[in-house]
Amino acid sequence: MSQVFNFGAGPAMLPRAVMEKAQKDFLNYNNLGAGLIEISHRSSEFEEVLSDCDSLLKELATIPDNYKILYMHGGAQMQFSAVPLNLLNLSSSKTASYIETGTWGVKARKECSRFGRSLTFASGAKSGFTEIPKIDPAALEPESAYVHITSNNTLYGTRWTAFPDFGDIPLVADMTSEFLSRKIDISKFGLIFAGLQKNLGPAGLAVVIVREDLVGSALQQTPALLDYKTCIDSHSLANTTNTFALYMMSLVLKWLKQEGGVDVIEARNELKAKIIYEVIDASNLYTGVSRQKDRSMMNVTFNFQNQDLLAPFINQAESSGLYALKGHRDVGGARASIYNAMPIEGCEALAQFMLDFEKKNS
Amino acid sequence: MSQVFNFGAGPAMLPRAVMEKAQKDFLNYNNLGAGLIEISHRSSEFEEVLSDCDSLLKELATIPDNYKILYMHGGAQMQFSAVPLNLLNLSSSKTASYIETGTWGVKARKECSRFGRSLTFASGAKSGFTEIPKIDPAALEPESAYVHITSNNTLYGTRWTAFPDFGDIPLVADMTSEFLSRKIDISKFGLIFAGLQKNLGPAGLAVVIVREDLVGSALQQTPALLDYKTCIDSHSLANTTNTFALYMMSLVLKWLKQEGGVDVIEARNELKAKIIYEVIDASNLYTGVSRQKDRSMMNVTFNFQNQDLLAPFINQAESSGLYALKGHRDVGGARASIYNAMPIEGCEALAQFMLDFEKKNS
Repeated sequence: MSQVFNFGAGPAMLPRAVMEKAQKDFLNYNNLGAGLIEISHRSSEFEEVLSDCDSLLKELATIPDNYKILYMHGGAQMQFSAVPLNLLNLSSSKTASYIETGTWGVKARKECSRFGRSLTFASGAKSGFTEIPKIDPAALEPESAYVHITSNNTLYGTRWTAFPDFGDIPLVADMTSEFLSRKIDISKFGLIFAGLQKNLGPAGLAVVIVREDLVGSALQQTPALLDYKTCIDSHSLANTTNTFALYMMSLVLKWLKQEGGVDVIEARNELKAKIIYEVIDASNLYTGVSRQKDRSMMNVTFNFQNQDLLAPFINQAESSGLYALKGHRDVGGARASIYNAMPIEGCEALAQFMLDFEKKNS
Repeated sequence: MSQVFNFGAGPAMLPRAVMEKAQKDFLNYNNLGAGLIEISHRSSEFEEVLSDCDSLLKELATIPDNYKILYMHGGAQMQFSAVPLNLLNLSSSKTASYIETGTWGVKARKECSRFGRSLTFASGAKSGFTEIPKIDPAALEPESAYVHITSNNTLYGTRWTAFPDFGDIPLVADMTSEFLSRKIDISKFGLIFAGLQKNLGPAGLAVVIVREDLVGSALQQTPALLDYKTCIDSHSLANTTNTFALYMMSLVLKWLKQEGGVDVIEARNELKAKIIYEVIDASNLYTGVSRQKDRSMMNVTFNFQNQDLLAPFINQAESSGLYALKGHRDVGGARASIYNAMPIEGCEALAQFMLDFEKKNS
């Protein structure tokens, strides 16, 4: 096959070097005569994988010492349950506040209502979630156990450029689609979580980074495997974890370190996004979905002045080796997900294709 | 490297043909130019994987039409929470009964007590869990929503040869370490679950097979992703599933079908276990851990008359390419896990090694 670029929103492409290394060692990890997925999660070989993940995450994301790193089953959406189950007791009225910048925030808020009182503190619904809503911190319910945000919205292609601050009330961020794509000051957050399947590895697991003073008062009905304390006490091995996902993440993190870390990848990601946004902004055929000031660097969303052009665009792109550009069914249009693993050449190829397509169709 | 046999209890060895196929297609699934783990869980390619799992499970396990098949995050232990969360409402007093044949049954019963009233209906603790306890169905709390058993105990190497019957009260079985290793009449159970990492694939996911009339009355505080109804309604895609685990399971199931299905594998498993048990029974050096009538076909446990021989046994076995024979830390001794993927030659090699070791040490 010739070179293709996969713009899927997730599970997403992984760095080629990582995929090749995993393939090479698939049957015979560390010369054991068995694959990594065939050995115990309590073996010394897997313990090393786990400790690599810990130390590389700590280094790459600059995680302060008073934060714990957990690996939890079920991806980000399981955290929509785990966060309220673990944190609602920080509020005497079991209240939490949500800022909704798209589908995920709405889902998270609804899930919280199973366990306590969940409030929509702000919402971007009025703008069709094409921009991040303005926040008035004074309007926050003071009894909130936490404020939940989605730092990057995969569907609409928006992100928080700067993060809000609510003083003593901890900020909880779903960073699934942008974790490790840009520099973040972890100390501004009470808790961060991210499903692996965008920037970190394959699907099925989430990384949770939590300030340790917030842990230990889970609701009584918290399932054992969703309790942060159980996870911390067992080093995320209260039961058999998704060993393959952690192994792949350890390779992705090693790759990221070798590439130069988050500073280098952030600059590259800015450049990649700019290459595509410049085509959109200069075009009479494409229109950006999200407002310029809130544009995501990970998910570039755009639509067509003439809707009839959408299907041919997607199909012709695919024939040119530019895959999975269809927008989310709730939003329509096109979407290019350009996570850390997408090389600059992929964005250049897409930009060139977009220019050619416009020329042919105007 | 020369041929090795991996007797680890799980994550366990997978069929060689499956591992080779997955390795071959790792970078380029179906000639897509991308690996299966790099594409959407909503792609037509992955939908095919999922539907292969459904149809092969239905066929291989002879699952009746009034049962649903779910794929759920977190392995079997997440089901220790999900089962009571989903089924306790079938009892007006939210009561469930547990038969404890080892660590897993005890854990499951304790987890249930977070959500309702959980009773130890019978326990093998008195025998040190070396045999399946006698059951008096008349003694069962009639308000029980269900009775939970562990069909095969991985630690002690016991199994239920015949299953108990409690009339209208559904039997729930954790079949993690023996699902698809022998013929089971599914219609005798209300619910069966199994983590993948023994007979089905890599770790992180569980298969749940549930009689459909039992679904739909989950407790209000059930996390969305643990609610069987949510899983059924979304075909287990309420969020991004562990696509790799399902893909690997589809390959394992195809392999099992090609081998001749459950009847053939059951006969082979009986033979494999017999090869090792015969050495134990004829020996003055080895002693079986579990009682003969309750012996597992999946986990053969044995100990040493002279405890000083355990460490040299494990080490010399490893040097001979017979890996991971150490017993569970709660039980001691040695354990050979011989799931479906273990070839007869592995059991023969172990038996020969045991005979040689006894000769040298008597």
